[in-house]
Amino acid sequence: MYALVERLYPLCRSITGDGVRATLDIVGEYVPLQVHEVPTGTQVLDWTVPQEWNIRDAYIADAAGRRVVDFAASNLHVLGYSVPVSATMPLAELRGHLHTLPDHPAWVPYRTSYYTPDWGFCLAQETLDALPDGEYEVRIDSSLTDGHLTYAEHVVPGQVADEVIVSCHVCHPSLANDNLAGIAVAAFLARALAERTPWYTYRFLFAPGTIGAITWLARNAERVARVRHGLVLACAGDRGRLTYKQSRRGDAEIDRVMRHVLDASGRPHRVAEFTPYGYDERQFCSPGFDLGVGSLCRTPYAGYPEYHTSADDLEFVSPEAMADTLALCREAFAVLDANRRYVNLSPYGEPQLGRRGLYDSLGGRSDAKQAQLAMLWVLSLSDGAHGLLDVAERSGLPFETVAAAAGALHGAGLIKA
Amino acid sequence: MYALVERLYPLCRSITGDGVRATLDIVGEYVPLQVHEVPTGTQVLDWTVPQEWNIRDAYIADAAGRRVVDFAASNLHVLGYSVPVSATMPLAELRGHLHTLPDHPAWVPYRTSYYTPDWGFCLAQETLDALPDGEYEVRIDSSLTDGHLTYAEHVVPGQVADEVIVSCHVCHPSLANDNLAGIAVAAFLARALAERTPWYTYRFLFAPGTIGAITWLARNAERVARVRHGLVLACAGDRGRLTYKQSRRGDAEIDRVMRHVLDASGRPHRVAEFTPYGYDERQFCSPGFDLGVGSLCRTPYAGYPEYHTSADDLEFVSPEAMADTLALCREAFAVLDANRRYVNLSPYGEPQLGRRGLYDSLGGRSDAKQAQLAMLWVLSLSDGAHGLLDVAERSGLPFETVAAAAGALHGAGLIKA
Amino acid sequence: MYALVERLYPLCRSITGDGVRATLDIVGEYVPLQVHEVPTGTQVLDWTVPQEWNIRDAYIADAAGRRVVDFAASNLHVLGYSVPVSATMPLAELRGHLHTLPDHPAWVPYRTSYYTPDWGFCLAQETLDALPDGEYEVRIDSSLTDGHLTYAEHVVPGQVADEVIVSCHVCHPSLANDNLAGIAVAAFLARALAERTPWYTYRFLFAPGTIGAITWLARNAERVARVRHGLVLACAGDRGRLTYKQSRRGDAEIDRVMRHVLDASGRPHRVAEFTPYGYDERQFCSPGFDLGVGSLCRTPYAGYPEYHTSADDLEFVSPEAMADTLALCREAFAVLDANRRYVNLSPYGEPQLGRRGLYDSLGGRSDAKQAQLAMLWVLSLSDGAHGLLDVAERSGLPFETVAAAAGALHGAGLIKA
Repeated sequence: MYALVERLYPLCRSITGDGVRATLDIVGEYVPLQVHEVPTGTQVLDWTVPQEWNIRDAYIADAAGRRVVDFAASNLHVLGYSVPVSATMPLAELRGHLHTLPDHPAWVPYRTSYYTPDWGFCLAQETLDALPDGEYEVRIDSSLTDGHLTYAEHVVPGQVADEVIVSCHVCHPSLANDNLAGIAVAAFLARALAERTPWYTYRFLFAPGTIGAITWLARNAERVARVRHGLVLACAGDRGRLTYKQSRRGDAEIDRVMRHVLDASGRPHRVAEFTPYGYDERQFCSPGFDLGVGSLCRTPYAGYPEYHTSADDLEFVSPEAMADTLALCREAFAVLDANRRYVNLSPYGEPQLGRRGLYDSLGGRSDAKQAQLAMLWVLSLSDGAHGLLDVAERSGLPFETVAAAAGALHGAGLIKA
Repeated sequence: MYALVERLYPLCRSITGDGVRATLDIVGEYVPLQVHEVPTGTQVLDWTVPQEWNIRDAYIADAAGRRVVDFAASNLHVLGYSVPVSATMPLAELRGHLHTLPDHPAWVPYRTSYYTPDWGFCLAQETLDALPDGEYEVRIDSSLTDGHLTYAEHVVPGQVADEVIVSCHVCHPSLANDNLAGIAVAAFLARALAERTPWYTYRFLFAPGTIGAITWLARNAERVARVRHGLVLACAGDRGRLTYKQSRRGDAEIDRVMRHVLDASGRPHRVAEFTPYGYDERQFCSPGFDLGVGSLCRTPYAGYPEYHTSADDLEFVSPEAMADTLALCREAFAVLDANRRYVNLSPYGEPQLGRRGLYDSLGGRSDAKQAQLAMLWVLSLSDGAHGLLDVAERSGLPFETVAAAAGALHGAGLIKA
Repeated sequence: MYALVERLYPLCRSITGDGVRATLDIVGEYVPLQVHEVPTGTQVLDWTVPQEWNIRDAYIADAAGRRVVDFAASNLHVLGYSVPVSATMPLAELRGHLHTLPDHPAWVPYRTSYYTPDWGFCLAQETLDALPDGEYEVRIDSSLTDGHLTYAEHVVPGQVADEVIVSCHVCHPSLANDNLAGIAVAAFLARALAERTPWYTYRFLFAPGTIGAITWLARNAERVARVRHGLVLACAGDRGRLTYKQSRRGDAEIDRVMRHVLDASGRPHRVAEFTPYGYDERQFCSPGFDLGVGSLCRTPYAGYPEYHTSADDLEFVSPEAMADTLALCREAFAVLDANRRYVNLSPYGEPQLGRRGLYDSLGGRSDAKQAQLAMLWVLSLSDGAHGLLDVAERSGLPFETVAAAAGALHGAGLIKA
């Protein structure tokens, strides 16, 4: 995953443009992608697909022609969606277009102006402080033209048509944790899920933030009705503990699964309430959709000083953290995938397990007692109203033990899904 | 308010009679009142309006003709609703009609016998201890005759016919906190609410305790159906912290509003569960009506030693405490009045606030970020099931910020009430 | 009760056979029993009534003919439901049929093999350790033949046909706490309930564990629909604190009553969640029936080292503990029996209690104030949705005070059941 992050890091992504396409090309080497191009001007819910932005070069040069701020050095230097500019102006006038972080004088901030035409440069405060007064040449060789918004999907087919959405944003330029780590975890999660056919159909969405999710939602009205659960992946690679942000509902099945798995895993973690800001969970959880979609981060959105700065670089993310995020996702989806409601077909009194060999078959196993208790719990709670996660939580038994017991009972014809 | 309390203090009030009328005359100088006279014998729910009681003079005189207990000195000296008496008797016989407070020998208790014919005097224990044996002249110049029960209403018209009732009892004689302070706060609250047309129609009820509320309920069966919320005001002027007693329902909107406002105000306070005794909330909350009516006191009913004694005097209440009670009521009714449920008219994804000027319009304000969050929260929760108080509580934002955001969204046509 | 336990202790009980019959004969001297005999092979829910097991003698004798393990000394020495055996074998071969408790070398374990044909002996580890190698004579003079399963019922008729079930298992041989103490408490509880006609009809069930309860449920499908509440009594005589295990529902009325009475009694106690193992609550609470049946023990099932060993003897149980269990049952059933929902017939405002003598009638009692509050609480909450236990819990008043108030109000025609 870290190698993927390293490859994606230099690209200049935005909510549209060739940087997104190049990103999806690379991700497509890991998992096959279906890429969608949506024309500028398309109405998507309350929004309109904007013009496509591309940039070739940008710089501020001093009177000697020396580039003091250079897009080639870092794509963060240019305000995202800057209109083209070619001018010479005194520093005093230029200052109105310069963005810095006085509290972190060595860092370059990340700034955009998607829907209000503007131009600007982002630079380190210490770079700015070193600039002498005088005339500067300012050039942004960008284009804003009718074109397309680009996003991609990857589907892992399941046993049922009900879907789980895994979404990550692909619109940030050279920021490693936000969201190259999320993209990498999503790609490897997709590969892991495909190792055996899962219960649900898993749909991975690689799309620009906000407008990308809105575009997908606008174009998939019928599919949305089949979305049972979802997870937005972001900030998946820093060294902080895991944070799960609940869906707007707060008691959606994904919320319960994530809480359970995080608790059961013993990992230090935090569970946060839903808020209507953050990543694309805001769109999936908007009241008209109100999907059971949560968000998994390590240190959350805007929760670390390096957020949206040049300090969110390749050093800031770690292979171990990404592997841990991926492992948690696999554990959670294993539970989600197996968490079904069964109906006890012999609900009057206990069925006689012994004559069905359900005691004998366990006799030689060291976890036989737990397995036997798990069968009694599954029989007791399989009334159509409780799922296996309910059984695990009420009994205090591990989910896998409960799921195995359900499998044995199902095999004996004592419960049905 | 304190001046009003001072004017009302000397009057001899009871559940009927000229003392109530004189009280309402004075209150009527502050807010116009509609006064109702209900004849003796009228059936009101399970009760009957009693005979009207009036009193001109009452005393106990010793053998020398000296008045040792005198109604003219304090109207508390006479047992409320005492039948007329004119007799001479030895102290030993008289003792059966004397009420004192041995634990507070300098205080005169307040006692009544509304529905069982009786007579008696209340006096300080130390006065009683000083009386020599011997014959005493006893005289109560009272009348119990067919007449009327008197109560009054004042209405602040609102934008809707749905009503909020504010009720206070007007039947206690010279007791300042219970309930002249409540009467004064109610009168000034009515004036404050009329400063601009409120959402709800606010009905202020000045009526004798129990029988007055029962009479009003009996005569206003149709109006009761329009009562959405209510508050009983009592003991509003002592120096203790505020106490809100919840309605029988416990989760009525008035309960939530009062809890929220008391918490948000930072005032030390107490929230008490409903009990079926206290003031007229017992009638409004009886199971047949079960109205969302709570009660606001400072130190509650029977919760202070001066309660129902001569020590509940003009010194016992303070202008600052009454002003604080009034301020809390205004804050609470401001929230209640604005706490509406909206429906997001653009519920699929987030609406694009920027193109509607809802970001720009806030750009220059220091609270812009909170205002923007408040709009996102209102949009997220405006599904018809959540009111603005829900939004404030779930978001942790101040109610006023949330209400302002709702106003801006309503102005932009993004939500409807 | 202790005398009854002493009489029952020597009998060799199992899930069928003459030991059960002899036990029921003795219990029948205390309360009349209706005894049922169900033939071997009868289908009962998912089970089949097994063959009947009886045993006359059993022993292991050494080469000198000396009985080193003897059924006559303790019926625990034989594996329950052992098939007949008559053989001579070396100790090494015999060991596969011997059960001991290495951690408690002086105790004899209790073991059974009801549904898998087997034979065996249970003995103290120290007895086994003292056996020299060599040939042993092994003899079990038992019979497994078509016969009957035996159980008994005792009914205390109530004012209504709705039933409360009290169940205890009668299938354990010489184990005092598990469950002779439970049998004794049940018998004396039945006698106590009959002292005056209770509200509910109380049905006492004396039946072998699991198969007995299943047989009763299978044969009483219509009666089950009338079962409102139930209690399984087991381990009722040890010196530990009381433990109430809740029904599967967790909020059944019996659960609330037991929690309330245990709390109100001030006894140290424990309330445990439902688990689908333990005693016959597993059958009554199986999801098809899901009855409001809890279980009362002192130290619970498998919760003490003496459990299912020879150390669960007459010393292990105490008359005081059994008396305490009985007393708690009587308190709980008094509450259960009186916990009815009333409807206030005068729900609009408070009814005038004074003119009905409901104040006067209490005037002379020291608990008058509590009685009066209790009447106001009953009136307030008698809306058809709250029972008297709700009133007691919400008011904080003792249940008996609340029940007495309801009685007075019912007598005055102010509430109806």
